[in-house]
Amino acid sequence: MDINQIEPIARLVNEFSKLPSVGRKTAERYAYSIIKASDEQVKSFVDSLLGVKAKIKFCEVCGNYTEQSPCKICRERTKKVLCVVKDPKDAMAIEKSGAFKGQYHILHGTINPLAGVGPNDIRIKELLSRVSDGGTEEVIIATNPDVEGEATAMYISKLLKPFDIKVSRIAQGISMGSELEYADEVTLTKALSDRKEI
Amino acid sequence: MDINQIEPIARLVNEFSKLPSVGRKTAERYAYSIIKASDEQVKSFVDSLLGVKAKIKFCEVCGNYTEQSPCKICRERTKKVLCVVKDPKDAMAIEKSGAFKGQYHILHGTINPLAGVGPNDIRIKELLSRVSDGGTEEVIIATNPDVEGEATAMYISKLLKPFDIKVSRIAQGISMGSELEYADEVTLTKALSDRKEI
Repeated sequence: MDINQIEPIARLVNEFSKLPSVGRKTAERYAYSIIKASDEQVKSFVDSLLGVKAKIKFCEVCGNYTEQSPCKICRERTKKVLCVVKDPKDAMAIEKSGAFKGQYHILHGTINPLAGVGPNDIRIKELLSRVSDGGTEEVIIATNPDVEGEATAMYISKLLKPFDIKVSRIAQGISMGSELEYADEVTLTKALSDRKEI
Repeated sequence: MDINQIEPIARLVNEFSKLPSVGRKTAERYAYSIIKASDEQVKSFVDSLLGVKAKIKFCEVCGNYTEQSPCKICRERTKKVLCVVKDPKDAMAIEKSGAFKGQYHILHGTINPLAGVGPNDIRIKELLSRVSDGGTEEVIIATNPDVEGEATAMYISKLLKPFDIKVSRIAQGISMGSELEYADEVTLTKALSDRKEI
């Protein structure tokens, strides 16, 4: 009578536990909520899962998720400034800030030799080809400020040297609204060395 | 380009956020993991959701989830001792402990006048009918030690008075392995008044 002895439930628990950061207990709670849900509710859930699989593809230009390729941003915005990010999630975060009005370029990863991810495994070629098509004046590299993100930024900036464009990196420093006292040493060092005259 | 502007993704995020304790951020992470998953993985997930809906029903005897009614426990175990619980989850928790070898009776709720749940809305009638069929010597009431659980336990114990059987309530006190210092006052009071000679 253990939940794990009822095969369909055990299977669903197993499927839920494949979601990011979902452990056994959480997966069991999700499975129970599905058992309790009405047929219509489960059908609607299933339809939305299948809908995403059927309708979402990658934009052939920027590599972001879209229903129609090229995506809305690539169709409607200028490519004067390109913002390079690791994942669609990052583009979404920047988009939510409303501070960027150019096009994106999603790498789908960062260079990580330990994990076997080399420059050819992420969308760097596509970036170079977009830039060499002309019309781009600046590339902002907005990969994460971690080892892989920094290495990828350096690598891309070198490749972009031959093109006569500005290459920049998003600023790193103390988070807005945070307290200096709690900032880590690396961030503080960076914030000091990158200080700006006011 | 905000995730919420891509309809199939927004819909999936909305569906995920209906799962218990899942907020918008978590739902977005789940949705991204589905976008990244292979068609086979999503198909397997969908099949498991539909499988649970198609195959899981309630045991006509104890009210627990089962593929086949009566369930394995009701078919194979003695009904000498019945353990009354609120939800299938509770029966599963007891089952995992391995400390109970009788049959269960799932109420599917507890009496809660404020939420409009009366004695007729939970499976009390079914319990009485099981007991009056004979063969039961003890009923252990294992509803939660909260207001509704206690009230339900009292109510059931009164209804079982006319039958010549033992009615018991699971012990309440300090959790095993916990520290006295952190126990709440109600639990400590209960632990003291229910003290046992050793």
